[in-house]
Amino acid sequence: MSDNLPPAPGERRWKCLCAYDGGACQGWQSQPGGRAVQDVIEKRIQEIFGRLIRIHGSGRTDAGVHARGQVFHFDAPWEHGPDKLRRALRVGLGAAIQIVKVEEAEPWFHARFSASGKAYHYQLFLGEADPFTRPYVWSYERSLDLAAVRAAGSRLQGRHDFRAFSAVNGPVKEDTVRDVRRLVLTGDGPLYRIEAEADGFLYKMVRSLVGALVAVGEGKMSLADLEQLLASGRRPPLVFTAPAQGLFLVRVDYPVRSPGEQGSLS
Amino acid sequence: MSDNLPPAPGERRWKCLCAYDGGACQGWQSQPGGRAVQDVIEKRIQEIFGRLIRIHGSGRTDAGVHARGQVFHFDAPWEHGPDKLRRALRVGLGAAIQIVKVEEAEPWFHARFSASGKAYHYQLFLGEADPFTRPYVWSYERSLDLAAVRAAGSRLQGRHDFRAFSAVNGPVKEDTVRDVRRLVLTGDGPLYRIEAEADGFLYKMVRSLVGALVAVGEGKMSLADLEQLLASGRRPPLVFTAPAQGLFLVRVDYPVRSPGEQGSLS
Repeated sequence: MSDNLPPAPGERRWKCLCAYDGGACQGWQSQPGGRAVQDVIEKRIQEIFGRLIRIHGSGRTDAGVHARGQVFHFDAPWEHGPDKLRRALRVGLGAAIQIVKVEEAEPWFHARFSASGKAYHYQLFLGEADPFTRPYVWSYERSLDLAAVRAAGSRLQGRHDFRAFSAVNGPVKEDTVRDVRRLVLTGDGPLYRIEAEADGFLYKMVRSLVGALVAVGEGKMSLADLEQLLASGRRPPLVFTAPAQGLFLVRVDYPVRSPGEQGSLS
Repeated sequence: MSDNLPPAPGERRWKCLCAYDGGACQGWQSQPGGRAVQDVIEKRIQEIFGRLIRIHGSGRTDAGVHARGQVFHFDAPWEHGPDKLRRALRVGLGAAIQIVKVEEAEPWFHARFSASGKAYHYQLFLGEADPFTRPYVWSYERSLDLAAVRAAGSRLQGRHDFRAFSAVNGPVKEDTVRDVRRLVLTGDGPLYRIEAEADGFLYKMVRSLVGALVAVGEGKMSLADLEQLLASGRRPPLVFTAPAQGLFLVRVDYPVRSPGEQGSLS
């Protein structure tokens, strides 16, 4: 947390909740072309304050991944309260990015370092999705053994080394142990949702977990295979990364620090 | 109906139900650039049959207008039944256009001339729609008197000359009398729906009716003003054409011609 300095004198820290359609954005993180969500929001902040102010997200989302509950913060000399700041930020962001809520944060709050957990939803459509649903689901036209998917989700819950279910390419020393608090299938069909909650997720971990659950549901992988994968810590070709367009970052959790302070901004 | 010849020998007439996202398409009717829904489907039919075969829609939809229940027909020498034809047609149409259903029609069926009515839904979102809803609604951030909107819808139902509520620019002799069987506001908010059904609609008539209903809901127009408009047959500046992106063609009705034959394909 050495790079989390408090706001400069005369500035306040602003915590923002935002939503975006990943199909219309080039991911969260700033890109050379300037079309990432971060770029669009920073451009607007620069228009308001007359200088570049970096925003800090809770984490990246890949190109194509949607968000209903991404959180970011930034410091700025704004004296007109959070509602007017939200209205100022909205202007010119376009229909694909929405600033849902703004609140003033404590000086030590950091969107990424303060987070205690995240929740993602993955939308799986079993059948032929219509043109209005299709951009937001994995449209999957084969049948799945849903009881097997549920059993696999249940088996993967808990504290494990999830290296086999990620696209981590870094050195082995990276900590790949995560506590998956929830991994359940909900919905009555044809639209289903895989809900994943953890203290944190590795790179492409949610989509890899979804790929594994679907492989189990198709009968291509057994629960015993899953156990072995967890133990091996190696990603086999069978672990498929589910398409980005079904994935939504829905919530970032922050610990409650004092009475009256919200634990999550949603 | 002189241009509705029966299928040539060896051909059958195919009646197709399709859906499309108007935001991703350049309207229904064939355009020079070839990006209209009709162009995309005709291109696919040409790939299947090796020659250009024209399709006939129930009517045009403007750029930006969506469809859940557009109907078209075409004649082709296909001997493998409607389900296989549907699966052949789907290939390469992209995510924004869906062929929902195909059935063999009687030789005299015509998607446009046989239609006895149409139903449209207009989605009105009172508030700030999220990025996933926004492409499919008119996101309207002022308050409306919903009782007044309902009363106005009720007043406009019935058989009237709707010239004042269209963008008809043709000669005065064009028949602009239509029978509006239903014009009601449904929904619990913040998403509302204006449901419009008639024997047929004039150019931009649904969006003009929605614009008038919203003007009444805002208090800019009274029920007496509506009466006067109907009587005058002249479109005043106050009749606003609601944005295309909230409009869905949901159903085309066809009369039941014989026992066992469906009156509408939906």
